[in-house]
Amino acid sequence: MTKKDLLALLEGVRDGSVAPDEAARKLRAAPFEDLGFAKVDHARALRQGAAEVVYGEGKTAEQVCAIVRKLREGGARTVLATRLSADKAAALAAAEPDAAYDPASRLAVVGPLPEPDGAGEICVCAAGTSDLPVAEEAARTAEALGNRVVRLYDVGVSGLERLLAHVGDLQRARVVVVVAGMEGALASVVGGLVDVPVVAVPTSVGYGAAFEGLAALLAMLNSCASGVSVVNIDNGFGAGFLASRINHP
Amino acid sequence: MTKKDLLALLEGVRDGSVAPDEAARKLRAAPFEDLGFAKVDHARALRQGAAEVVYGEGKTAEQVCAIVRKLREGGARTVLATRLSADKAAALAAAEPDAAYDPASRLAVVGPLPEPDGAGEICVCAAGTSDLPVAEEAARTAEALGNRVVRLYDVGVSGLERLLAHVGDLQRARVVVVVAGMEGALASVVGGLVDVPVVAVPTSVGYGAAFEGLAALLAMLNSCASGVSVVNIDNGFGAGFLASRINHP
Amino acid sequence: MTKKDLLALLEGVRDGSVAPDEAARKLRAAPFEDLGFAKVDHARALRQGAAEVVYGEGKTAEQVCAIVRKLREGGARTVLATRLSADKAAALAAAEPDAAYDPASRLAVVGPLPEPDGAGEICVCAAGTSDLPVAEEAARTAEALGNRVVRLYDVGVSGLERLLAHVGDLQRARVVVVVAGMEGALASVVGGLVDVPVVAVPTSVGYGAAFEGLAALLAMLNSCASGVSVVNIDNGFGAGFLASRINHP
Amino acid sequence: MTKKDLLALLEGVRDGSVAPDEAARKLRAAPFEDLGFAKVDHARALRQGAAEVVYGEGKTAEQVCAIVRKLREGGARTVLATRLSADKAAALAAAEPDAAYDPASRLAVVGPLPEPDGAGEICVCAAGTSDLPVAEEAARTAEALGNRVVRLYDVGVSGLERLLAHVGDLQRARVVVVVAGMEGALASVVGGLVDVPVVAVPTSVGYGAAFEGLAALLAMLNSCASGVSVVNIDNGFGAGFLASRINHP
Amino acid sequence: MTKKDLLALLEGVRDGSVAPDEAARKLRAAPFEDLGFAKVDHARALRQGAAEVVYGEGKTAEQVCAIVRKLREGGARTVLATRLSADKAAALAAAEPDAAYDPASRLAVVGPLPEPDGAGEICVCAAGTSDLPVAEEAARTAEALGNRVVRLYDVGVSGLERLLAHVGDLQRARVVVVVAGMEGALASVVGGLVDVPVVAVPTSVGYGAAFEGLAALLAMLNSCASGVSVVNIDNGFGAGFLASRINHP
Amino acid sequence: MTKKDLLALLEGVRDGSVAPDEAARKLRAAPFEDLGFAKVDHARALRQGAAEVVYGEGKTAEQVCAIVRKLREGGARTVLATRLSADKAAALAAAEPDAAYDPASRLAVVGPLPEPDGAGEICVCAAGTSDLPVAEEAARTAEALGNRVVRLYDVGVSGLERLLAHVGDLQRARVVVVVAGMEGALASVVGGLVDVPVVAVPTSVGYGAAFEGLAALLAMLNSCASGVSVVNIDNGFGAGFLASRINHP
Amino acid sequence: MTKKDLLALLEGVRDGSVAPDEAARKLRAAPFEDLGFAKVDHARALRQGAAEVVYGEGKTAEQVCAIVRKLREGGARTVLATRLSADKAAALAAAEPDAAYDPASRLAVVGPLPEPDGAGEICVCAAGTSDLPVAEEAARTAEALGNRVVRLYDVGVSGLERLLAHVGDLQRARVVVVVAGMEGALASVVGGLVDVPVVAVPTSVGYGAAFEGLAALLAMLNSCASGVSVVNIDNGFGAGFLASRINHP
Amino acid sequence: MTKKDLLALLEGVRDGSVAPDEAARKLRAAPFEDLGFAKVDHARALRQGAAEVVYGEGKTAEQVCAIVRKLREGGARTVLATRLSADKAAALAAAEPDAAYDPASRLAVVGPLPEPDGAGEICVCAAGTSDLPVAEEAARTAEALGNRVVRLYDVGVSGLERLLAHVGDLQRARVVVVVAGMEGALASVVGGLVDVPVVAVPTSVGYGAAFEGLAALLAMLNSCASGVSVVNIDNGFGAGFLASRINHP
Repeated sequence: MTKKDLLALLEGVRDGSVAPDEAARKLRAAPFEDLGFAKVDHARALRQGAAEVVYGEGKTAEQVCAIVRKLREGGARTVLATRLSADKAAALAAAEPDAAYDPASRLAVVGPLPEPDGAGEICVCAAGTSDLPVAEEAARTAEALGNRVVRLYDVGVSGLERLLAHVGDLQRARVVVVVAGMEGALASVVGGLVDVPVVAVPTSVGYGAAFEGLAALLAMLNSCASGVSVVNIDNGFGAGFLASRINHP
Repeated sequence: MTKKDLLALLEGVRDGSVAPDEAARKLRAAPFEDLGFAKVDHARALRQGAAEVVYGEGKTAEQVCAIVRKLREGGARTVLATRLSADKAAALAAAEPDAAYDPASRLAVVGPLPEPDGAGEICVCAAGTSDLPVAEEAARTAEALGNRVVRLYDVGVSGLERLLAHVGDLQRARVVVVVAGMEGALASVVGGLVDVPVVAVPTSVGYGAAFEGLAALLAMLNSCASGVSVVNIDNGFGAGFLASRINHP
Repeated sequence: MTKKDLLALLEGVRDGSVAPDEAARKLRAAPFEDLGFAKVDHARALRQGAAEVVYGEGKTAEQVCAIVRKLREGGARTVLATRLSADKAAALAAAEPDAAYDPASRLAVVGPLPEPDGAGEICVCAAGTSDLPVAEEAARTAEALGNRVVRLYDVGVSGLERLLAHVGDLQRARVVVVVAGMEGALASVVGGLVDVPVVAVPTSVGYGAAFEGLAALLAMLNSCASGVSVVNIDNGFGAGFLASRINHP
Repeated sequence: MTKKDLLALLEGVRDGSVAPDEAARKLRAAPFEDLGFAKVDHARALRQGAAEVVYGEGKTAEQVCAIVRKLREGGARTVLATRLSADKAAALAAAEPDAAYDPASRLAVVGPLPEPDGAGEICVCAAGTSDLPVAEEAARTAEALGNRVVRLYDVGVSGLERLLAHVGDLQRARVVVVVAGMEGALASVVGGLVDVPVVAVPTSVGYGAAFEGLAALLAMLNSCASGVSVVNIDNGFGAGFLASRINHP
Repeated sequence: MTKKDLLALLEGVRDGSVAPDEAARKLRAAPFEDLGFAKVDHARALRQGAAEVVYGEGKTAEQVCAIVRKLREGGARTVLATRLSADKAAALAAAEPDAAYDPASRLAVVGPLPEPDGAGEICVCAAGTSDLPVAEEAARTAEALGNRVVRLYDVGVSGLERLLAHVGDLQRARVVVVVAGMEGALASVVGGLVDVPVVAVPTSVGYGAAFEGLAALLAMLNSCASGVSVVNIDNGFGAGFLASRINHP
Repeated sequence: MTKKDLLALLEGVRDGSVAPDEAARKLRAAPFEDLGFAKVDHARALRQGAAEVVYGEGKTAEQVCAIVRKLREGGARTVLATRLSADKAAALAAAEPDAAYDPASRLAVVGPLPEPDGAGEICVCAAGTSDLPVAEEAARTAEALGNRVVRLYDVGVSGLERLLAHVGDLQRARVVVVVAGMEGALASVVGGLVDVPVVAVPTSVGYGAAFEGLAALLAMLNSCASGVSVVNIDNGFGAGFLASRINHP
Repeated sequence: MTKKDLLALLEGVRDGSVAPDEAARKLRAAPFEDLGFAKVDHARALRQGAAEVVYGEGKTAEQVCAIVRKLREGGARTVLATRLSADKAAALAAAEPDAAYDPASRLAVVGPLPEPDGAGEICVCAAGTSDLPVAEEAARTAEALGNRVVRLYDVGVSGLERLLAHVGDLQRARVVVVVAGMEGALASVVGGLVDVPVVAVPTSVGYGAAFEGLAALLAMLNSCASGVSVVNIDNGFGAGFLASRINHP
Repeated sequence: MTKKDLLALLEGVRDGSVAPDEAARKLRAAPFEDLGFAKVDHARALRQGAAEVVYGEGKTAEQVCAIVRKLREGGARTVLATRLSADKAAALAAAEPDAAYDPASRLAVVGPLPEPDGAGEICVCAAGTSDLPVAEEAARTAEALGNRVVRLYDVGVSGLERLLAHVGDLQRARVVVVVAGMEGALASVVGGLVDVPVVAVPTSVGYGAAFEGLAALLAMLNSCASGVSVVNIDNGFGAGFLASRINHP
């Protein structure tokens, strides 16, 4: 049951087209199945073809596997499991042989990647090598949700020529995701080079007065370039997910 | 000269289609005109028909008027002037009789509003009455950039029935802007009700441990709903600008 | 010696009904017994039948066992031991065979649970799976203090339908405990749905700008719903204890 | 329409006893009346006899007067208007001759105080003279909501004898509200003397490292006494409102 | 060379009573001996009979032993080594058989304790069991510097009767050291009960919004009782050292 | 009734030498007289001859005058009124012709200064000209409490020769009060030059990253010199009061 | 007496070439002249020809004029007065007819500007129009200390072409001062373009999460470009002063 | 390709002396070589003879070795590898036999140290023994970049005589690097003693209210001495690098 279905149901009750008891039955039954330890949320399937998402942090390997199984039995073609430690990923691979795991971003994709069906490309830029795990989390999330992704890595502002050598890629994108720690200046520079939405992801890369990503977070919130918005520190998944929404009108 | 023009020029120099001295001449001449106190940035005209933007804070009435004049002489049909105090607005109205000023949001629109040409509607939600100035800044910015805007005001989460009575409006939107102070919970609730990008604007409304918008800012950055990103505290302009970019693929 | 006893004693000295030396003797002797490493505080027995409480953090297994023994010898029917690591719990189970330990909440209940004798039910809501240890600490504390508890788990605001499916439970409660990390919005939404006191517990669940529970804490303190108060981050015990006090007029 | 009415209506739709269109009509019509600038929220009437509440901050005198009028026309016997500046209060007094205004707490009560009908007394303690405005806001709110209130003022912990001279008052209360700035220690000391819920209100009284109430807020959240919960800095209204809910089972 | 000696020397150079080259030679030679890794600071011997102090953190066992040896060879009767891990303490005990180590406070005293020669007693109060390591660091430091120390432990303000049972001890002291974590209220309560200097030591005891001692630190800095000053979080040594200075006019 | 009297009374009740009702009567009557708006606290008279203290902030001119009157009628020879605005000081001067007011420190001394009777001198150092108001508050408070005070002003560490030119004054003192804003380094330098207690007062002098005194506060709490303790930002009164207690064994 | 003189004097005492009493006499007399309210610090004259500096904040107009007079009588050719309000500047202009005041930077230069004698040029870059007062404070300070200054204003990173159009100026400089508020990214971009020291000045320009310059400060401290160091928020004087020191080997 | 080369190239394109396609080819080819995992940045070679720098944090041993190899093959005589753990250093030593590793500062120098060719000496001061790793990182970085370095260690301000005994060394330096944790006062004291640029490095040494270097950072930013600028907490490399730039005009 997608959110649209849910809202349609509620509207139906209100306009009389759906009987209340029918609606109540559906409401209780549909949106989640109870596995004892967690409610499997079927409502997150946004479009035909895109992946379902399982958030792996704080769940046991058994729980992750059970939820993935349930989702696939419920018809999901592709399932994305995030924040998955290596041992949980191993358990998942044992249970679902077509699971592909990336240790850097700690993402697993179970099932085939969907065909890209977004309006354009998503460009993921990362400032430094240490930002790559978060950047990959964004990029792979976007791919699993049906987007074509272009990666521009190691293009931090202290070597502007590296970024300028790729203005064409930036120009072509429908959305740009900027991943940067330390002073997070890349978001402003990219924001000044493009005319499309920029999703900025501060990372906890840096030390001392970086304060675990606070410096980059504040910098990005105060970007002098218009068209930049910010997600939580290290939230590559959130950036990829949002970029996909922007790219799927 | 739009940014696309600029980047095309640089590409031209590289592929040999533009003579270097020609490019250099254009580069120095085009992107800004020097008025002595400020460079008028022609590069911000994003699309045909949308408004040019003048940021009013920290400029004198004379400076605002001169820049607006220059932009209109340069061909701008509509000019948006933001963060304009009442007296600067009065000076502007004297100079440009077709200027329309909204005291709450401190925005002035000079010239006719462009025809909405975005992909869909932008829905601007505000939690409380005190959040209206920021919400209006977002809504009017979006309108001046060529968007159809639906306003849902006074729909804070402590009275959920007020929000739920308008699910249809939320559902129809291509983008939702959520404006809220205090605990900023509206962003998460709306984020859970829609399948489109949500741009969250924390406001400095509240007292004590609201810490001038910090509580709402942190809450929005940590939203449990996916698809939510955040702009600076009280940055209604930024939210409206970004929403317009999302709505104009 | 309960606090009422203590205050009565002080009043007695003042009104002459208790001889000063008698009072002084009682005062020194009664409220705590010295075990060398800690004073066993008999004053925490609030009502007949409810459990005594031992705070396990920072005490050795031997100390916890000795205090529990002392309390039971002093007549306590039920003893609640909080923040108990697994190995301390094992030591306690060896010493007190009727001890029941919950590893998630790190609580042990020694002796039978008291009959619920509160005015109504306490409803404990938790936003996500990761909040369960704190929620269980609140729920089990309340049960050990003589309350009937209803649990509503995994009802975070990004899936409002899950919460709305249980309005009946919320409605029936005499007190609601809301446990949530990340942006803590659940407290405001629940606060808007009920007419009874809401005790909000921010948890350290989340990452990045959650700042170990700070985001949820600030959000809850700024709740736009009236009737909400807040305890320390992750303080499930405090919430359950307070809810019990509200439920036992 | 009280919240109970609202929830009953929703249940009615679900169990079929209320026709959907009837419910939809009521849902849109009932909970608020649109005055153009604000929705008058009838849902806040909690019990027969208690006051309706109008939050005065950020509203014009005209708006406050119009809302109060509407509420009285809707049947409210008593209306409480909070955070009211002196000039707004004067306008209100002109419009509603039976309005009584307290400049210190900036509260106005329009109409007769209801008869106290709570389970017991509410004791409001304040540490210092500068805390009185917040303490009075709590005390008068509680009175307007139908509670008997006992005030213990100027009982800060640096002069313990002043507090101890009133243990009887503390002992008799069903709830205690503790209002304190600076180091906020009074909450812990009172929390150790009573067996009932303590609602702590940090105030912004103090200077330097008091950081506008932050020191007292943190202290109260970390109270070593069980049974203490905290509301926002200077939120006397919230404390009085919550205390009333605890006192009206 | 004590500080008085040093200052006298400088005065001597200025008034001509000491030849400059003589002074220069002394200045370079006297105050510290170079062991390669650290300058042994002989200047910290404050009075005849009191202990020399070696700060153990960040030094290897070998370095601590070498410095202690040097000091004793230089005439020190008693040496106090602080912040010493168990293995460094073992190495020290092997090298100096008369070293006495307290694992809780991580202090070692090498040589005999000096006879108390202060003006009066130092009373060290601690709020809870978890504060004892810091309290012992203060108490043992004071003893090693020639003070008589009275300990009042587990006298937190939530059980006021425990503190009041010992007013006599507080009354007799020349200085009171108050050690408390969590909300740090004990400093204010003690400050209100005595007429002598109170040295407050916030501890990192607590969790969540205690923020590693910040809550107690702010509370103590804002104490409503006069005569209270504060040292760094967990700085038991600093408190004992300062109390000794107050107690040795 | 001094605190010693109070504690003696409590002891008396306990040992039987004081009848309980007699004690209760005294307890209620003695320590404060009710003026309606404030309890006049007679307990603050610490020694024969020293001044009583009235804290002026948050009290009206009438209230200050009434309290001062009451204290003098109660036998106080000297009264110190702190944090007094110029107009309150004028009102006080009208009521008490022997009041002497210092506008910089906002202190008024009513009646003759007591003869210095402390053990030694108190040296008050200030880093810069802007720190003088706080330094004078400390110095005058100490004088009003019976201390001889030596002032060393404008001796900030960036011009070390100015401080070193006065080592003799520092050496002679029984206590040193160090007042400094900005980076607060003076406390550490002075702490390294003397063998007596140093009371450090951070001031809110500075801008930007001084954060209203936070930089100096943190620096002083982390002083590498032993024997330094800290009071609240700008709390000159507290420093002078504490220094007097150290100087009056 | 310059600092070199002072240090030479101290060395002289040590090596015997200066008689101690002679040195003591000079030490007391030389470095400052007492005007009652402030010590005139002659030690700040760094080189022949450069300006003396008077910090105007917290001094009265009379005090500023008196100090300037004294300095000129002492031989200073040029005096720089900083942080001077308009009315103090007017008083200074009345007293010293050759004073030139810049209202934006609140700097006055009294006497002729010295001839530039530094090793190279100092380039001062500013991101936005609102940063100009701080940038001018830096530029004019450097000029008054004998430096040639090149200004690059309004070159924020959101319009990279404006900065790149001036790479030649950046390249030629011996030091670059970067002045920026909001996200402070300009420091990193400039730091990546030059091979000379960059002095970064965060400004308090911005709103909301700029937190009065904190965002820019943290960003600059975390600059990914090497060779960047930071001074206090809005400290244009400090940056100009330091740049001059770098430029005068 | 140095940055100067890069900028010259861009200028060349503009003035026509370089053919655009030639420039484009160089631009893409020159500045970095792609090793798959990282772009080797040749642009950091600042002068003939000075070392290339590899930042070791977040790179595997294999990656560090490969980059070092590449740089040497590209002609680098000396390579500096920073933030290198012991095992990475061992791998490097195996690959490059002429690598010299310092475990304290975690720096490795591969190849011969360059001859000092700076304008003067760099003096590196450290306050305490625990600050040495950061101080050594600064000192060795400076040496690898061609500077003569003088070390003044263990000269914290609490023992001023230790610092004053070395004024000659301070006086002779062209730049001073000050490394200090805790309260960071050494930067201000040194800043007052010298006439040359001071680069201050706060360290995370300290505990409690040192807040991982925040106290020292704020203190240094607020230094009352002019001519002091600050780099990130523990950023010894950055300080040494900047000092070298100042020392190489």
